[in-house]
Amino acid sequence: MESLKDQFLLRPDIHFLNFGSFGATPKPIFEKYQEWQRVLEAEPVQFIAFDGYQYLADSRAVLAKFLNCADKDDLVYVTNPSFAINMIAKSFPLNAGDEILATDIEYGACDRTWDYYCKKKGAIYRRQKINLPIVNKEQFIEDFFKGCNENTKAIFISHITSATGLILPAAEICAIAKEKGLITIVDGAHAPAHIPLDLNKIEADFYTGACHKWMMAPKGCSFLYAAKSVQPICDPMIVSWGYQAAKPSHSNFLDYHQMIGTRDFSAFLTVATCIDFMEKHEWKVVGQKCHQMVLDHAPRFFKLFNSNPICPLHSEWIGQMISIPIQTPDPEQLQRTLFLEYKIEVPIMRQGNDVYLRYSINAFNTVDDLDALYNAIIEIQKQGVLLK
Amino acid sequence: MESLKDQFLLRPDIHFLNFGSFGATPKPIFEKYQEWQRVLEAEPVQFIAFDGYQYLADSRAVLAKFLNCADKDDLVYVTNPSFAINMIAKSFPLNAGDEILATDIEYGACDRTWDYYCKKKGAIYRRQKINLPIVNKEQFIEDFFKGCNENTKAIFISHITSATGLILPAAEICAIAKEKGLITIVDGAHAPAHIPLDLNKIEADFYTGACHKWMMAPKGCSFLYAAKSVQPICDPMIVSWGYQAAKPSHSNFLDYHQMIGTRDFSAFLTVATCIDFMEKHEWKVVGQKCHQMVLDHAPRFFKLFNSNPICPLHSEWIGQMISIPIQTPDPEQLQRTLFLEYKIEVPIMRQGNDVYLRYSINAFNTVDDLDALYNAIIEIQKQGVLLK
Repeated sequence: MESLKDQFLLRPDIHFLNFGSFGATPKPIFEKYQEWQRVLEAEPVQFIAFDGYQYLADSRAVLAKFLNCADKDDLVYVTNPSFAINMIAKSFPLNAGDEILATDIEYGACDRTWDYYCKKKGAIYRRQKINLPIVNKEQFIEDFFKGCNENTKAIFISHITSATGLILPAAEICAIAKEKGLITIVDGAHAPAHIPLDLNKIEADFYTGACHKWMMAPKGCSFLYAAKSVQPICDPMIVSWGYQAAKPSHSNFLDYHQMIGTRDFSAFLTVATCIDFMEKHEWKVVGQKCHQMVLDHAPRFFKLFNSNPICPLHSEWIGQMISIPIQTPDPEQLQRTLFLEYKIEVPIMRQGNDVYLRYSINAFNTVDDLDALYNAIIEIQKQGVLLK
Repeated sequence: MESLKDQFLLRPDIHFLNFGSFGATPKPIFEKYQEWQRVLEAEPVQFIAFDGYQYLADSRAVLAKFLNCADKDDLVYVTNPSFAINMIAKSFPLNAGDEILATDIEYGACDRTWDYYCKKKGAIYRRQKINLPIVNKEQFIEDFFKGCNENTKAIFISHITSATGLILPAAEICAIAKEKGLITIVDGAHAPAHIPLDLNKIEADFYTGACHKWMMAPKGCSFLYAAKSVQPICDPMIVSWGYQAAKPSHSNFLDYHQMIGTRDFSAFLTVATCIDFMEKHEWKVVGQKCHQMVLDHAPRFFKLFNSNPICPLHSEWIGQMISIPIQTPDPEQLQRTLFLEYKIEVPIMRQGNDVYLRYSINAFNTVDDLDALYNAIIEIQKQGVLLK
């Protein structure tokens, strides 16, 4: 695994333990990205207004196969999962009193989005309390559906949560929600190439994921899947030529969400290169080793912080990142101190009233990175200000 | 001017007469773009979540000076003008019966945007007929304000129109609209670095412009200016962490419109390089020569198509692009034929029931390009199918 470090463009002087936020792009993928940009610049009109649609279709086909999505035309590339969730929340038909059911450990940007649009429509965004630590899947599912009532129209849930780093039982939740006649919306920002992902098995109505995290695409590459049954409710996020198009294609969904004004969509075209890279370097094996490193070192960090795991330490709940509850009077300052004084990139994240240190492990990490973190924490604890 | 051709990445075998749609980026600007992307990849977290805000502020300061905008914090970078107009139209407070006044020669994507949001709110998007050919400024202004009535809340107007390539008297229109108590919204997509642009003189409430056209930035680089008085009505286009931020900055406007999820905003950071490039190569002189070439060759094209100018052939109305009314049964096929059979990139555009051939001239063009177009048209006319 050590040798893979050279494949990345990351600063060698930083202990980079925050792959989870924005990923990192290996050189061959990055070079392909910049090559596409040169193709664009050689003939911007052909790229953006003509050939680009075929390039996008080709890239969607490769992604569809990777995700086990039956029809590539049910997928569109979007800048990021927040963009996708905004489009869904803006479009979603809600009457006064209707409810969207979510957990209380969703991503803050998405909470804000649902809050904003639910308030506009007189609807309720219900953030159902999940009891931590999680005991087992059954308990989680029971907790979640306590928030369901006759007004609930849809459920919104992360496949892997952000601040708490938990793999949630999305497929089971979607299956139960479907039985109840609810629309299912999954925020899979952290899922693709992090955990096995099969859209056909999850059967969510909407599923969004980032390609710029664990798939290692350049920043600004994500996707939205929408089942054909829910595509008609999707209005464009950015109304443009694809809305009431003069010459519509075979799919309003593609016209609405692909034609959103001039932009450089080269990042969307690197997905085949990402998948090739992962195959060439046996990424499943790499991921398994990383996952094991996450788990092997977790106990000493829980001990160091005198805290307890928020779920069983098992691949059912934990992938290549783990969140450790910590106590600090100033999470932001702690994160800055770790970076500026110890050259450690690791996020200290708030979720409600709780604070977590979340470390991620990928191919370029070694035990040395976790040792550096461990030793830095001990030093900061000794200083007795940001940690005690 | 000939020597400047080498500065661009455009295919040498194409007569590129469509700078107007997506611009073209010179090598030094493109290299700076890709260099920023390498800076991002060296430490994605620092770039996106920390240093990036300062980089953006620095870039907004340079742009503000270029546009003569007093406060850089009244400017935000956006992907494209359509994005900006979507945000404004989505946010704009409209009651049933209220009206937005525009011309009938606006950009189709923006027409669709206003139509969409006006219909949602029970308001009216009034596309006032402009008589062509334009006789003079007074006549244009008179035509336009015939569409104004007691329900009009705002005016929306292009600074330079798209299909018709006309410089409109935006400053005068805004001044009169302001006297009438209307909000003024200018779509300056084609204006920056194409015509002298001074935001302080125009005094629009909202002004959006593309940097990826005549300023030659990479695709996906545009700006929105909003006067402080109208910033409070602007909701985020993409609701994210900047909305009801945990730790708001000094400006909601920046928080709402800059923090819109993970993306590669390197293009926004090239604006200083764009301005340096233009200064180094005396772009005002280059632009003047291009403008003169546009006008010098226009008469033979009007004669060829047996049509008449839609405005006085003068720098008051015409910059570096001109639209010539043509008759063709199939505009899209004509454009494809010119490209595929004659290697000429030139747009054939519809506006209402009319069709225009619009050619743009920039530093890399020579008379040879216009000769090629001229001769191709003669050949196509002889074939008697797409042109007669």
